[in-house]
Amino acid sequence: MGGDHGPSVVVPAAASALKTLPPHVRCLLHGDAAQVKAEVAKCAGLAERSEIRHAERVIGMDEKPAQALRRGKGTSMWNAVEALRSGDATVAVSAGNTGALMAISKLILRMSADLERPALVASVPHARGVSTFLDVGANVDCDAQRLVEFAIMGEAYHRAAHGVVRPTVGLLNVGSEEMKGHEEVREANRLLREAGLELDYRGFVEGDDITKGTVDVIVTDGFTGNVALKSMEGAARFMYGELKAALTAGPLSTLGALLARPSLLRFRDRINPPPTAPLLGLNGLVLKCHGGAGDREFAKAIRAAADLAQSGFASEIERNMRRLPAALSIAAPADGAA
Amino acid sequence: MGGDHGPSVVVPAAASALKTLPPHVRCLLHGDAAQVKAEVAKCAGLAERSEIRHAERVIGMDEKPAQALRRGKGTSMWNAVEALRSGDATVAVSAGNTGALMAISKLILRMSADLERPALVASVPHARGVSTFLDVGANVDCDAQRLVEFAIMGEAYHRAAHGVVRPTVGLLNVGSEEMKGHEEVREANRLLREAGLELDYRGFVEGDDITKGTVDVIVTDGFTGNVALKSMEGAARFMYGELKAALTAGPLSTLGALLARPSLLRFRDRINPPPTAPLLGLNGLVLKCHGGAGDREFAKAIRAAADLAQSGFASEIERNMRRLPAALSIAAPADGAA
Repeated sequence: MGGDHGPSVVVPAAASALKTLPPHVRCLLHGDAAQVKAEVAKCAGLAERSEIRHAERVIGMDEKPAQALRRGKGTSMWNAVEALRSGDATVAVSAGNTGALMAISKLILRMSADLERPALVASVPHARGVSTFLDVGANVDCDAQRLVEFAIMGEAYHRAAHGVVRPTVGLLNVGSEEMKGHEEVREANRLLREAGLELDYRGFVEGDDITKGTVDVIVTDGFTGNVALKSMEGAARFMYGELKAALTAGPLSTLGALLARPSLLRFRDRINPPPTAPLLGLNGLVLKCHGGAGDREFAKAIRAAADLAQSGFASEIERNMRRLPAALSIAAPADGAA
Repeated sequence: MGGDHGPSVVVPAAASALKTLPPHVRCLLHGDAAQVKAEVAKCAGLAERSEIRHAERVIGMDEKPAQALRRGKGTSMWNAVEALRSGDATVAVSAGNTGALMAISKLILRMSADLERPALVASVPHARGVSTFLDVGANVDCDAQRLVEFAIMGEAYHRAAHGVVRPTVGLLNVGSEEMKGHEEVREANRLLREAGLELDYRGFVEGDDITKGTVDVIVTDGFTGNVALKSMEGAARFMYGELKAALTAGPLSTLGALLARPSLLRFRDRINPPPTAPLLGLNGLVLKCHGGAGDREFAKAIRAAADLAQSGFASEIERNMRRLPAALSIAAPADGAA
């Protein structure tokens, strides 16, 4: 029911995604049964591979997380997450209210990592692919241990989502030298080097490394990550606006833009980030698809969800997370000497 | 002597800048006398309005700040800053090593504000002008008071540099609600609201507000500012690269780009930031011009420096700074109640 379009986008997207997914993959569609049923009827073959789970109510796109928690029970979003907990579903996808989805997921599934809230991941396009950037806003205050947990989760996610066998990991800082930055990043850097995790950790990276693709996974706290992501989005929007203005500034420019149109459309596709973001650190797989997604994008999100559910993602994170407490206690004595 | 080009750019730039500046404005040219003299001889009218101050040595572009401090005495950069302290000059402009310029300026001029190092300012283009963004890397750890000092200095600089009578000021955060963000920004927000400064403070802004031009001056700590600035630069470089690739992808696109070339060049000019950044918080006016600047850009930097020197910039900062300690002690009791 979520997102800007609701069932009119989500249902056809499910039908289209299922066509390219293995036959055992099925969808539970949570929402207003009458509305959803009408949409399912328009999609050949979907009824056989899906099940409608009626929900009386819906979480509004502008409800506060606290409000969503109080009155969320019985909403389509709540039921979708509850189906993960009960084992009816393996992965949940929503285009609904992000804050509410995080709060409801945390309440129902509980956190596996020591975080305030599930970490939010952004996938940022660069010249040779996509980088995984986290946390982009959920956990504003992060000590060194949280940053290490982001590294573990982000690395496993990048492998599962992009099929990179051994993703490289970097820690966002204001310079690449070991003594730069504040205490938390310096300590996280030391832990990542010394804690014996199964990670290809490459040290500090800087803001412009995100779109350079210097490493696959960029780790930072939720404050810095949110600001950096929104700054990049803002810069991209500003450039795009200026470019559009330049290319319609006169008859010659407009003609030029017309001739270059197919290339410019490919350009727009390349700079657009993927529509899906996982919520990391939960006992369960929840994916957020952006609210404005159309059916092609939402279908992509469902396929990404199915891939993630079939990957070793969760168990890889668990293995490295189990290693962490021991690593922290081994690494701790070196603190004074560092 | 600094920057990628040295006197071959700096000297003609001085000549060109002086042509449009009032006749009482003169330049002290610090550097190797023989080299500088040869360049001055090529520029009609420059000899009469400048004076060459010989320096035996130069700070290298890759020298560490500590190294620059140890062996800096007698270098052209040292002498340029020393001329401010002695009163021989009103403002210094350098395209040299930024870290060394900050360290030498701090040592010779001393800080007027309570900062580790002079605050670094970036001027970021947006659709309706340029925003002033600080600190972009000098002061990694910032408490609320430092953030307020950045607001005071950035506001005065924006007025002096861009002629905006009453610049608006925002504090960078992860959301616009009062309870969002970490403690330092919440406390700085309270101080800016309650401390009775002469500022048009507009509250919290987010990363994408930088290039939206929501406010004239955006304040943040040196860690977040550095990451955000470099992230935006990286995003812009990535987009520019992809655009270039798209516009040379085939004969039609290339022809289109050729037709739109004047507009695309204007586009490039619009998205390029101004070449000058002041070092704020010093007892003296020091401007950094980026190392790769050509003579047109360096001339712009000299003109900006002269404008700044003739503005009420320094005394405006002083007035608000003097107000700060009293404001802090008045504001403090409210802390527990907030």
